[in-house]
Amino acid sequence: MALSTRLTERLSLSHPIISAPMAFAAGGRLASAVSAAGGLGLIGGGYGDAAWLEEQLGLVEAGQFGCGFITWSLLRQPALLDLVLAHRPKAIFLSFGDPAPLVSRVKDAGAALITQVQTLRDAEHALDCGADVVVAQGSEAGGHGEKRATLTLVPEVADLIARRSPQTLLCAAGGIADGRGLAAALMLGADGVLVGSRLWASAEANVGPRMHAAALAANGDDTIRTQVMDLARRLDWPSRYTARVLNNAYTARWHGREQELIAVAEEEAQKYRKAWADGDPEGSNTFVGEAVGLIDGIVPAGDLVRGMVSEAEACLKRFASV
Amino acid sequence: MALSTRLTERLSLSHPIISAPMAFAAGGRLASAVSAAGGLGLIGGGYGDAAWLEEQLGLVEAGQFGCGFITWSLLRQPALLDLVLAHRPKAIFLSFGDPAPLVSRVKDAGAALITQVQTLRDAEHALDCGADVVVAQGSEAGGHGEKRATLTLVPEVADLIARRSPQTLLCAAGGIADGRGLAAALMLGADGVLVGSRLWASAEANVGPRMHAAALAANGDDTIRTQVMDLARRLDWPSRYTARVLNNAYTARWHGREQELIAVAEEEAQKYRKAWADGDPEGSNTFVGEAVGLIDGIVPAGDLVRGMVSEAEACLKRFASV
Repeated sequence: MALSTRLTERLSLSHPIISAPMAFAAGGRLASAVSAAGGLGLIGGGYGDAAWLEEQLGLVEAGQFGCGFITWSLLRQPALLDLVLAHRPKAIFLSFGDPAPLVSRVKDAGAALITQVQTLRDAEHALDCGADVVVAQGSEAGGHGEKRATLTLVPEVADLIARRSPQTLLCAAGGIADGRGLAAALMLGADGVLVGSRLWASAEANVGPRMHAAALAANGDDTIRTQVMDLARRLDWPSRYTARVLNNAYTARWHGREQELIAVAEEEAQKYRKAWADGDPEGSNTFVGEAVGLIDGIVPAGDLVRGMVSEAEACLKRFASV
Repeated sequence: MALSTRLTERLSLSHPIISAPMAFAAGGRLASAVSAAGGLGLIGGGYGDAAWLEEQLGLVEAGQFGCGFITWSLLRQPALLDLVLAHRPKAIFLSFGDPAPLVSRVKDAGAALITQVQTLRDAEHALDCGADVVVAQGSEAGGHGEKRATLTLVPEVADLIARRSPQTLLCAAGGIADGRGLAAALMLGADGVLVGSRLWASAEANVGPRMHAAALAANGDDTIRTQVMDLARRLDWPSRYTARVLNNAYTARWHGREQELIAVAEEEAQKYRKAWADGDPEGSNTFVGEAVGLIDGIVPAGDLVRGMVSEAEACLKRFASV
């Protein structure tokens, strides 16, 4: 198995696979399993809880993990970045907001700066900021994102990088859950991929059994992009971002009735947080992308990483003689 | 150049590329150019104008073209299908509606039945109907479509076909405008691709110069899925379908104000149709997908087909030694 790319060379990885820093789901255990298998595992810094972060950082080996943050949230509590940098991450991943104020601290600490973008315009800004890796995230992704699709955003950003900053690396995110998606991303000009939903459905993810069961029962038609869970949780997401989740009783009740939800948000927030704590996939949300239809079991993350690479190689070999 | 797949074998093509049957834009000249280059060119039957169809059919060679229809529209004037079948098309392409009532007439005439789907559920129905080729169309496509993305829909439909009907062929549509997209589609399990926007931007498409200029000036961030042009044109599109077009003065004015538009639709329809006839890209709409950001010139369709194939081969060769 030797899918070598500029990403594997530059970050000293065996495989061009990075695990998405999924808030709550991606802790130290998942990050370690992905890194041990030869990819780069990212802890999901999420909305920023110092005690949780310390605990997860205790589960990883310095230099063999990265950490992702929700940029707009991190800008409100920048000390969390220092907390993580002290553990010598290989990379810091920033998405959803302007990374500019954080760039020098990341680079001065010797970590690679990975910035995730959802539009061509934001990719231009990421290059202006000096990102080492740009992740082009399509709307098929689970959790937060925007409207553009991976299939067009990746080659368009690849062309931008070729014109403006050829040394910058590019990864594809959104909709990639198996070796076919990995091989497709490489064809589009990516140096590697970010994998979210498929690793969410792994043995090492911090995800409860009822959430996993809901995902296994779903197909790719069963997701929706919405803001209702952010309104209910009273999170200050900028309005350009929505989150993809499984359709359920909660989205059926509130999607399209956002103003009514805002009016009762205090009460709903309590109910939502309780359902979330209970791992209830109807009263809270299962954060997965359209690739949920490609998920057929909850297995160890290392097996997933290795399986993706061998499947991608098999796909590529079918056309090796053209 | 030899990207041979089950599609090229079954339909006797040189290249696994089918041109999208874009209403208005895809006439006999474009279909002929694509077929002459070794792909399969489709005439866009659109909303069904017998005189226009006869004229376009006069420009193609029997057995070397196909014709596409908007299924719900064709069901209202089924005689148009006989008109086309009399010219011995290689294939009939049906999208947006239930193809079941039309299947036997297509097959009895010896044409291949290509059905385009936007969801896994519709793909299941297409297999029930006995489609020879299923086209999985993602939301990144220009013109009418739905919400799912090409990158996840194609492998999910590939898995369905493998389980239920392995002899059925699969093509990918939406977001494919160059050899990178073609190679990616093959990795996802497709036997070929449908190309719309890129061939819309060809010398043989029935598209005016101001529409082409608007597309060349745009990038992939500049499109929107909306229903305002269908409301203005008073077309009876089922509500599940929206159309992707370039953002312009028209969408800025009406998107989000659909009820107000319906109230003045008669007047707006006249204005819209005049702007459309004038080729005005602000008063009417430029129907292109997110791949508009990958389009850099208006060139002959044959060059585009051949260029896509050689670029795809180059992409595949980069990883031929894994």
